[in-house]
Amino acid sequence: MKRITIVLLIVILFSTAAMAGRDVLPSWAEGPTKTAIIQFVQDVTKEGGPDYVRPEERIATFDNDGTLWVEYPMYTQVLFAFDRVKELAPQHPEWKTKQPFKALLEGDMKTVGASGMKGLMDILIETHSGMTAAEFEKTVTNWLATHKQSRFKRLYTECVYKPQLELLTYLRANGFKTFIVSGGGIQFMRAMTEKTYGIEPEQVVGSSVVSEFQIKDGEPVLVRMPKIDFVNDKAGKPVGIYEHIGRRPILAFGNSDSDMQMIEYTTAGEGRRLGLFVHHTDADREYAYDWDSHVGTLDKALDRADTNGWIIVDMKKDWKTVFSFEKSNK
Amino acid sequence: MKRITIVLLIVILFSTAAMAGRDVLPSWAEGPTKTAIIQFVQDVTKEGGPDYVRPEERIATFDNDGTLWVEYPMYTQVLFAFDRVKELAPQHPEWKTKQPFKALLEGDMKTVGASGMKGLMDILIETHSGMTAAEFEKTVTNWLATHKQSRFKRLYTECVYKPQLELLTYLRANGFKTFIVSGGGIQFMRAMTEKTYGIEPEQVVGSSVVSEFQIKDGEPVLVRMPKIDFVNDKAGKPVGIYEHIGRRPILAFGNSDSDMQMIEYTTAGEGRRLGLFVHHTDADREYAYDWDSHVGTLDKALDRADTNGWIIVDMKKDWKTVFSFEKSNK
Repeated sequence: MKRITIVLLIVILFSTAAMAGRDVLPSWAEGPTKTAIIQFVQDVTKEGGPDYVRPEERIATFDNDGTLWVEYPMYTQVLFAFDRVKELAPQHPEWKTKQPFKALLEGDMKTVGASGMKGLMDILIETHSGMTAAEFEKTVTNWLATHKQSRFKRLYTECVYKPQLELLTYLRANGFKTFIVSGGGIQFMRAMTEKTYGIEPEQVVGSSVVSEFQIKDGEPVLVRMPKIDFVNDKAGKPVGIYEHIGRRPILAFGNSDSDMQMIEYTTAGEGRRLGLFVHHTDADREYAYDWDSHVGTLDKALDRADTNGWIIVDMKKDWKTVFSFEKSNK
Repeated sequence: MKRITIVLLIVILFSTAAMAGRDVLPSWAEGPTKTAIIQFVQDVTKEGGPDYVRPEERIATFDNDGTLWVEYPMYTQVLFAFDRVKELAPQHPEWKTKQPFKALLEGDMKTVGASGMKGLMDILIETHSGMTAAEFEKTVTNWLATHKQSRFKRLYTECVYKPQLELLTYLRANGFKTFIVSGGGIQFMRAMTEKTYGIEPEQVVGSSVVSEFQIKDGEPVLVRMPKIDFVNDKAGKPVGIYEHIGRRPILAFGNSDSDMQMIEYTTAGEGRRLGLFVHHTDADREYAYDWDSHVGTLDKALDRADTNGWIIVDMKKDWKTVFSFEKSNK
């Protein structure tokens, strides 16, 4: 028994020592951004300190597209929807004459683009409804397991930012609860968030279609209906947070103007708060885009960052490594 | 150091021994119901066993009114709404002539009752909107801190069932995540669930009004609008579970036909599942009501329990103690 206790104690002491000396965010370059993040976490977790926040209230919310995984040149979920239109076309003869489905099937992306948000929503609704919850989950899982990002030739779930995975782990190790709060479909994301980010389904907040409880062939199922329920984007993000989480985050991380209200709401709370935006500045390793981009537009938030104390994370400077599959660090 | 390790080990051994010998559900009477609950928990937590469920998927959902706290003779939230009408009347001169507000202000409960679900919803909507999220939370917290249940002369948050508090603790100690899934207002409940049940806001699912993100006096706030967003009752419960939790529960506990779809959905899943209903059979210690009750009607679910393997918890027989404030056990 004596030997066991000594071994146990050595393990405990060694782990603690290893933790203390270890770089908790190895893919983040040394500099003011990394320092600010670590300082924030140390301050809010320091018991008895002026900025202490109890673990229950350590809510951190992350946007998904462009914040945790690649969104360029097009949101993954939109590419999924486009593929679904092609796969489902035989069952929808009406699409041969109905826009923007006709254009999409003919590969006329200019006309698809010209159909605007209305056209895109029609495509999203039609491809995300008319099946049970279980069927939809299976379709998304299969698609994600077999389709690759156009530039990196890797699964989309591999095109996730290594510094952010480290940050999620670091926050959770410090008692934070990490949530995704994204304009993306809540059930689309849930197919990948647990394995990819360690974020469980109940900590994912997103957009949704209306669902109905039905008895189908004697089995109780949830059926996805062709009607938008909630759009968890822009001013919808604080609403999604209020409904799903019920507490104001103390840290929020986004990358575009669509995240501005979430970060505004977060940083306006009392006590220490941290708001961050990924600025995509690295065309070599990922992409460079901001104010005039067709996805992930970062414009107003960039202008207002200084005044509001929001941190702009410069991908090129602040991230030593972008992806786990990169051969070596810069 | 040696002494510290030995002390540490003794503490560990002692705690384990104490756990093993302890009655984990002391307010539950010995019998088939208690045995079934404990057997279920042991089976799904036994690593390598045929019924093992990993902790992430150990989702347990509880109805609130009549399942965790007293709902008789009237739902607490409805009493709150009635009180609010009286308090807010000076700011709403139109209520003097508008039903069912007029009747309520005149104490004519028969007319209020005759206004039916439509009238009740009007009262709920008017008293639950038109303020910020923070203002609403404060109002509910204050009301709960100052109003008492009619029979027991105790705060509503004291009129919670001791056996259920023990069950929540027991489930969490076994790696379960405990959720409330109630027809009650999500934000109304969040004002009391953490302190009363140890259930944090993000694990509360309920009905809601539409909320809007606004900038008010330069501050970003959420404003509650006079419009129903979602009714988390009956067939709405599995939908609420799908949206908020994203996983089918393995255990669900209710007390009325309003919980039937939730329990049907839960127990229809693969693997071991447990569905339970509190049957209010104890007029001496609490109340006795079921199929013809105006609140918490338990009728169809009672008929279908046997066929579906649902457990009917007989309050009189299965609960040794109902409330913590009871002087002694039966």
